[in-house]
Amino acid sequence: MDVVFTYEPKEDFRVELKREFPDQQFHFCKNVKEAGEILAEAQIAVTMGEDLTPEILENCQQLKWIMVTSAGLEKMPFDSIRERGIMVTNARGIHKIPMAEFTLGLMLQHAKKFPVIGEQEKEKTWSRRIGSAELHDHVLLVLGAGAIGGEVARLSKAFGMKVIGINSSGEAKDHFDEMYTFEGMDKVLGSADYIVSVLPSTKETRSLLTIDHFKAMKESAAFINIGRGDLVEEEVLLRAAGDHLVEKIYLDVFKDEPLPADHPFWEEESITITPHVSSITEHYMPRALSIFKTNLLAYHNGEELINIIDTERGY
Amino acid sequence: MDVVFTYEPKEDFRVELKREFPDQQFHFCKNVKEAGEILAEAQIAVTMGEDLTPEILENCQQLKWIMVTSAGLEKMPFDSIRERGIMVTNARGIHKIPMAEFTLGLMLQHAKKFPVIGEQEKEKTWSRRIGSAELHDHVLLVLGAGAIGGEVARLSKAFGMKVIGINSSGEAKDHFDEMYTFEGMDKVLGSADYIVSVLPSTKETRSLLTIDHFKAMKESAAFINIGRGDLVEEEVLLRAAGDHLVEKIYLDVFKDEPLPADHPFWEEESITITPHVSSITEHYMPRALSIFKTNLLAYHNGEELINIIDTERGY
Repeated sequence: MDVVFTYEPKEDFRVELKREFPDQQFHFCKNVKEAGEILAEAQIAVTMGEDLTPEILENCQQLKWIMVTSAGLEKMPFDSIRERGIMVTNARGIHKIPMAEFTLGLMLQHAKKFPVIGEQEKEKTWSRRIGSAELHDHVLLVLGAGAIGGEVARLSKAFGMKVIGINSSGEAKDHFDEMYTFEGMDKVLGSADYIVSVLPSTKETRSLLTIDHFKAMKESAAFINIGRGDLVEEEVLLRAAGDHLVEKIYLDVFKDEPLPADHPFWEEESITITPHVSSITEHYMPRALSIFKTNLLAYHNGEELINIIDTERGY
Repeated sequence: MDVVFTYEPKEDFRVELKREFPDQQFHFCKNVKEAGEILAEAQIAVTMGEDLTPEILENCQQLKWIMVTSAGLEKMPFDSIRERGIMVTNARGIHKIPMAEFTLGLMLQHAKKFPVIGEQEKEKTWSRRIGSAELHDHVLLVLGAGAIGGEVARLSKAFGMKVIGINSSGEAKDHFDEMYTFEGMDKVLGSADYIVSVLPSTKETRSLLTIDHFKAMKESAAFINIGRGDLVEEEVLLRAAGDHLVEKIYLDVFKDEPLPADHPFWEEESITITPHVSSITEHYMPRALSIFKTNLLAYHNGEELINIIDTERGY
């Protein structure tokens, strides 16, 4: 049985995989194009989730299972996959630790004014009047109260924050002091010192936040988007920044990535750009591939796989 | 009964104090020099703790109680104070929240490579290969396991870290997975990814860390000192930085503050300097003055004050 990777994992993992599954034939290809002929005969494909098309799948008549070693599934050709009855699994669950750490890091950087201190250091200037704040007793609003949002909430509670969550049901969730639906968001936007979005890209979330939402936020608030770039139209973000509707906007995700060098976001002082790295750490691939190994073993033993995607809903 | 401040708190606090204690005579002076004559007649003095000398005390024959609205007492003339039987209280306990937040902020900044991302942003460069790490599953060593060290430990446990503490007794403490004495420190230095010192300046801690301690640390470790600057000789820090014995040294405290503009620390790439701000936030003075108000009420009612300093031990 052939397993085809449409990218090359690090050597130590390739060795580990061959050692642990000696009867399995692995093919590690540079990209989906190179995978071509081999992929056409393979039963199992492992992908980062952005390279499969209906045309490619048309050629893969043996394919039974696609493992996506990331969480983003927006680019998967689910219509073709469903028609063909191919099973899809992904690496969901491995993002909450790095993404929540990243978010708390940004919140603390904001509160403690580390960039201001860093500029002073370059000037060899010693000034203690930098306006440091605390997370303690401040209010966090989390848009999206799933695994990642829940982990952000849990850590923020440890810092003594009040944590409010928004999701489609508005039902109570662990680590959240209060929950509201999207319709109820207006009631609480004005009380938040930090607004963090971890929302995925769906029909409901695209262009969800308008300029009126930013007008309702505190002028001293920090807005952080580590979910998906299409949550807010770019013009809305530029206007919110230019009019100082909030103190700072932190963006890790964008409509087009990489963000082009001539994009106006780069010039906007109150926008801080990070290159979609909230989930990337040295532990990312080992964790994703560990899920793959668990599933590969289950597949061989005829047991149920974990992280199976509903190809109708797409998540 | 006269209360003399040797510094000027913000107006809203002065108003609040007069309103809450209408029978009390308050004098808010710019500095201890301006306080001169009035201080000589006062029963109660409120100071930041760095301006009283034996000569000044000699002139203050009515003085019964000194409230120090900080935690640092190294510059207090305790011999004269003890001879005269003056009571001293301070603001201890208000530092743990801001200092622990500051420390976790530095640790996350280090792990997430925010300064690297910040430099890339200035160049309008989108690169995701920044070598981000996590706090999760990493090891923190805290030198000094009192109120502040315990709060750093508590937050670090929330991040899923292993936390080891060092104090003089080596006795078990909440939020620490393991405790060692100073003598036992050598055994654990090499296992730590983060080494944080919150130690005060005492006979035992001055010049405690030597170059051999730094040689025992991981090359990938981050050393953070938010305690007192005399914990490590400056030459030791410069050598540890120059020889890359650790990845980064974060210093918030120094032998001489402010750090002179021509000090070699500023030029050292692997040393990050913050201007003794770990405890300073907008909440500092309100909390310190709240302790003063509690004590002023107790003083009037003949009740026991909180945060009384043992003038023999000096803390």
